[in-house]
Amino acid sequence: MEKQILKGAVMVAQSGGPTSVINASTYGVVKAALANKNVTRVLWAANGVEGILEDRIFDMNAEDPKELELLKQTPAAAFGSCRKKIKEEADLVKIVEQFKKYNVRYFFYNGGNDSMDTCQKIHDYVAKIGYDMRVMGVPKTIDNDLAATDHTPGYGSAAKYVATTCMELSKEAGVYGNAPIIVVEVMGRNAGWLTAAAALANTSGFGPDLIYLPEVAFDMEKFFVDVAALNEKKKGQVLIVVSEGIMDKDGKYITEYTAAAGKDSFGHTQLGGLASFLAAQLKSRLKVRVKGIEFNLLQRCAAHIASKTDVDEAFAVGKATFEAAAKGESGKMITYQCTRNPYKCTYVAVPLSDVANHEKKVPLDWINKEGNNVTQKFIDYALPLIQGEPNIVRENGLPRYAKLKRKKI
Amino acid sequence: MEKQILKGAVMVAQSGGPTSVINASTYGVVKAALANKNVTRVLWAANGVEGILEDRIFDMNAEDPKELELLKQTPAAAFGSCRKKIKEEADLVKIVEQFKKYNVRYFFYNGGNDSMDTCQKIHDYVAKIGYDMRVMGVPKTIDNDLAATDHTPGYGSAAKYVATTCMELSKEAGVYGNAPIIVVEVMGRNAGWLTAAAALANTSGFGPDLIYLPEVAFDMEKFFVDVAALNEKKKGQVLIVVSEGIMDKDGKYITEYTAAAGKDSFGHTQLGGLASFLAAQLKSRLKVRVKGIEFNLLQRCAAHIASKTDVDEAFAVGKATFEAAAKGESGKMITYQCTRNPYKCTYVAVPLSDVANHEKKVPLDWINKEGNNVTQKFIDYALPLIQGEPNIVRENGLPRYAKLKRKKI
Repeated sequence: MEKQILKGAVMVAQSGGPTSVINASTYGVVKAALANKNVTRVLWAANGVEGILEDRIFDMNAEDPKELELLKQTPAAAFGSCRKKIKEEADLVKIVEQFKKYNVRYFFYNGGNDSMDTCQKIHDYVAKIGYDMRVMGVPKTIDNDLAATDHTPGYGSAAKYVATTCMELSKEAGVYGNAPIIVVEVMGRNAGWLTAAAALANTSGFGPDLIYLPEVAFDMEKFFVDVAALNEKKKGQVLIVVSEGIMDKDGKYITEYTAAAGKDSFGHTQLGGLASFLAAQLKSRLKVRVKGIEFNLLQRCAAHIASKTDVDEAFAVGKATFEAAAKGESGKMITYQCTRNPYKCTYVAVPLSDVANHEKKVPLDWINKEGNNVTQKFIDYALPLIQGEPNIVRENGLPRYAKLKRKKI
Repeated sequence: MEKQILKGAVMVAQSGGPTSVINASTYGVVKAALANKNVTRVLWAANGVEGILEDRIFDMNAEDPKELELLKQTPAAAFGSCRKKIKEEADLVKIVEQFKKYNVRYFFYNGGNDSMDTCQKIHDYVAKIGYDMRVMGVPKTIDNDLAATDHTPGYGSAAKYVATTCMELSKEAGVYGNAPIIVVEVMGRNAGWLTAAAALANTSGFGPDLIYLPEVAFDMEKFFVDVAALNEKKKGQVLIVVSEGIMDKDGKYITEYTAAAGKDSFGHTQLGGLASFLAAQLKSRLKVRVKGIEFNLLQRCAAHIASKTDVDEAFAVGKATFEAAAKGESGKMITYQCTRNPYKCTYVAVPLSDVANHEKKVPLDWINKEGNNVTQKFIDYALPLIQGEPNIVRENGLPRYAKLKRKKI
């Protein structure tokens, strides 16, 4: 049953951590919206819901279409992001006031699971007060931890960065006769998807020796034994990859063993510094040279090594989200439903409630018995997601990013 | 005057820190050598002079030419590297014994300024004892600090990595309304060439705000003033790039302010950890959020973002080195002599003594008066060096590295 056609403005906004392809998804929405005859204009709010609340709203129709096309290769969040969680109804009242002011009838929020929760709240509130509009989530996260979808936009590119960089570090680790052991720290709070992507490097013959995910309790003594055995065998040419979110059997983050742990604005423990900490532990226990390397922000914005599969899907999911909304869907997010052998991805809408605040983890049977690597099941799952390289528009040997006019309405 | 044609074996070896294109240079030598009728066979020593001393010598003729071709896109040191300095004549005696044993008449040592010193010592010793052979250095270093050459093989690719990654981090820094200040640490002991390459990102409109090189004395108080002023103006969207080798006015490394400073095997102070240290200083003084990021080993082996100009020149310099040796040159290194507008690079042999143990720094008039950025002169110099992207052979979405048989002779 098709719902009534709704005429009005479209608003897009971005939230959560940046990725290499979040702008490709937002552009997918925007391109389809700009071409739709029921859309009176396309607006964007800076820094997610913060920009809606603070009336930092801009006119997408004023932007040069050629610059917008470059959003497909522009990393981070071109429209600004935020980490705001909506806790009070006052925020919802104010947001809907803004929607009414600009006659916004379609709202698209591009983000991860915290953002889908915000999106759900907005959807429920407009339904409650009877303001007729469509509210849709557009998925995004390098963490790949969204429920109900085969994988997330942003994961494939981050995975390609991690795998490629691990290949390079594997070559580094083998350069000297007695090279330092390398410990790499990869992002991923409670799900090890991105850390596991390091294993893709092994399909090339040059990859990590040990991989530790948060899905398996981390045991420091077992870690020393694993590393010592490998170091004995390989004489120092050892590459270890750990997730920032590894925890001991009591559920305590290993990063909390260090003094510096703080909390972020969602109340999550702030992670980081794990590579240096584990390097120091190994040095002290095994009397070996160790180098700790943190991929840090580099892994989530490395659009120069984006996966074409990821970019194309990210754009397509944005487009599919707009089209679903135009047909009457609301309170939903488009998921990827995929087959392997051959790899094929289709786009299916699911209720936001199936996604918001859930966390999808790496299945335990995709992790080896020793808990220090992944199995072929993970490789078969993830390898299609890093395929292809986008044809990047460059100037002076550097990527050409979208430049926005930022015309305030 | 052409010297007498010398028949015999060629030996190649690699030394010093890895780069994205050292293997392209070694392959330049090897490809020309394999095609030369006076070359009886081509050998390689693992881990530089260490492999010669320890008789870890391998047969290049046994390798698959298709795999050797892939050396052009394989980072780090495919033949293994070392940091050994020759201090005793006993080492030279043993090395030349090895040369005699395998009838090596051409030796090519691919490395930086410490390696050119080793090469010079070998050259002088064989001249002294009257063993007829040609000894040539092949330049390599991401640091770009070799004397007598316009630039060094490896610099352009590392510079492209630094500039591209700084663009990505510049987008990251602007994502949130109140994003943390980012402090990036780039390699370069006493010369700021690679750190300066961050400024190339500004040609794209997305680059760092402040750049600190070791050529200018670093003043912590001035640093606080610089950053506070920018932070006031930009509200946290600040990207700062510092060289690991920045020193205060008394010549003390800023990294030595931290407790962890050690020495490497050449007696150089071990650098690193500067980004975290400066981040902590800024947090404490300015009460701002700051993220320290160290490019670490990633910057010297990121072949996936190599500069085509660099790869092509690196291969060409290897080839030119062999050809010069075949014509009778010895005790020399081929330098790049370049013009700008239009950019053109020619290859000229100079005595190793012009290169060994010298260090070329960024000219002071290429640095701005405030000592916190570079001028257009640097941009004009460096921009041609990062142009073009090599056509990378891939398998499963990942670069295909050379796989060597490693057949011992």
